[in-house]
Amino acid sequence: MKLVECVPNFSEGRRPEVIDEIVGAMTGVGGVTLFDKEMDADHNRAVITITGEPEAVLEGVFRGIATAKDLIDLTTHEGEHPRMGATDVVPFVPVRDMTMDECVDLAKRLGERVGEELGIPVFLYEHAATRPSRQNLAKVRKGQFEGLRDEIGTNPERDPDFGPKKIHPTAGAVAVGAREFLVAYNINLGTSDLSIAKTIAKSIRLSGGGLKYVKAMGFEIKDRGIVQVSINMVNYKGTPLFRVFEMVKSEAERYGVPVIGSEIVGVVPVDALIDCAEFYLRLESFQREQVFENRLAESEAA
Amino acid sequence: MKLVECVPNFSEGRRPEVIDEIVGAMTGVGGVTLFDKEMDADHNRAVITITGEPEAVLEGVFRGIATAKDLIDLTTHEGEHPRMGATDVVPFVPVRDMTMDECVDLAKRLGERVGEELGIPVFLYEHAATRPSRQNLAKVRKGQFEGLRDEIGTNPERDPDFGPKKIHPTAGAVAVGAREFLVAYNINLGTSDLSIAKTIAKSIRLSGGGLKYVKAMGFEIKDRGIVQVSINMVNYKGTPLFRVFEMVKSEAERYGVPVIGSEIVGVVPVDALIDCAEFYLRLESFQREQVFENRLAESEAA
Repeated sequence: MKLVECVPNFSEGRRPEVIDEIVGAMTGVGGVTLFDKEMDADHNRAVITITGEPEAVLEGVFRGIATAKDLIDLTTHEGEHPRMGATDVVPFVPVRDMTMDECVDLAKRLGERVGEELGIPVFLYEHAATRPSRQNLAKVRKGQFEGLRDEIGTNPERDPDFGPKKIHPTAGAVAVGAREFLVAYNINLGTSDLSIAKTIAKSIRLSGGGLKYVKAMGFEIKDRGIVQVSINMVNYKGTPLFRVFEMVKSEAERYGVPVIGSEIVGVVPVDALIDCAEFYLRLESFQREQVFENRLAESEAA
Repeated sequence: MKLVECVPNFSEGRRPEVIDEIVGAMTGVGGVTLFDKEMDADHNRAVITITGEPEAVLEGVFRGIATAKDLIDLTTHEGEHPRMGATDVVPFVPVRDMTMDECVDLAKRLGERVGEELGIPVFLYEHAATRPSRQNLAKVRKGQFEGLRDEIGTNPERDPDFGPKKIHPTAGAVAVGAREFLVAYNINLGTSDLSIAKTIAKSIRLSGGGLKYVKAMGFEIKDRGIVQVSINMVNYKGTPLFRVFEMVKSEAERYGVPVIGSEIVGVVPVDALIDCAEFYLRLESFQREQVFENRLAESEAA
């Protein structure tokens, strides 16, 4: 059974009743499951994760966007997190029996409907981007709601992929895309010297000449008196966790600093962990069908 | 949903039609799933793995034993593997939401039915054993069909836990028990010196003063010109894979020999692999609910 995850971000983090109504609209579609719901008052933003078969998720998230358009007014919205729309960003993530191309297709179909039926301009981003400059979400959202309102329709660079060349007066614009599963992964160092975490973060991330699918920053963990390399693994298949862990360990050794632990924030696909077992146990010709639970699922389906 | 695995071993490895009939009897019970089927002509033995909810599996395996009693005659059976019954050994293994005690209870209920309804003497073994000397299957099966036929009824040490104090003339006797999931795990060494594999095997196994839940032997892998420590992990929760791997690596270093790889034979529970990722990545406060697939199963069930 094909399974897709969709993680719409809504510009509302203070009124739970609004988010409840949006979630209700999405999960009112048969086959859509609520996987996670996070609201942040400072960011004034909610991150909702739904899963299900592609057509159900497509219909569900469309209804969520329509509901958010009615209930959220960007002209009075304030929060720490950058945003350009009532529904700000909508990534599709392949979970099971799905390709990235199929997620790109879902993003385009959703974008077309949102543009035509709701009159909200849509920008395709990441794997769904129609030009390289739009792969990066930060660039698509540059200037936020207020800046985009001025530029859209006058600057051809800001022409949307779907919908009117004019910002929606209250719902703004929305970025719709397709991306890999994100793993938030932190590595803790046995030192209080923040400069070491920052230097290592720089050396392992793509922008610093490091690993392709790694974004990283250095932070202090004051209550523990240690520092942390905080990592976004944007493609755990392309750059596996163990490679990042070993690289941080090796860089830290150069300063005589030990790696004292690591943390996975939120959820991680089981395959990302099995990849680590396979690496460290030096497993020869290991097949994922050898995982008892996978074989069980197969035999139960047979 | 409670899920139990049962791995009955039948003394027939040459007539597929006999095994098909036995398997058919077991899977004819609603809710019983055939997980694996292996026949070996040299051993003249079949190892069948079924899974399902406890009551279904209990009924299924009882019907399998009744069918084997009708179709297999121990007086004409020959094979390399030691055996004492048409159905030789029946372990229950806890898989999901099951305790070992519940598996022991299943073993006793099955044993009582087999003894009373089929007239086959039953010996409880491993976790289900009623005395320490019967924990070890090899001791229960000592003398095999022919030896037990002479002793049972005369030597009180060989009194069965259920059924007549007399061997069944064609179906023999059966050992019924409860055990943990077995993981077959081999570690390959970069040397052709068999004595090193044998020495390391001895040092890591319980009987040699090593790890509690480890059985191990040394073998040559002639076509690769290497040797192997071949391990039965009889309780991967009690003695995890990484601990065995690291111990073999350390022992091998003492001879200047590298560990060049390892192999999992057959299936392994996903938790055994996640334990390894957790160890090597030095994960702090990792919860199994953080595994995406586990959370997904929960949210789909909600």
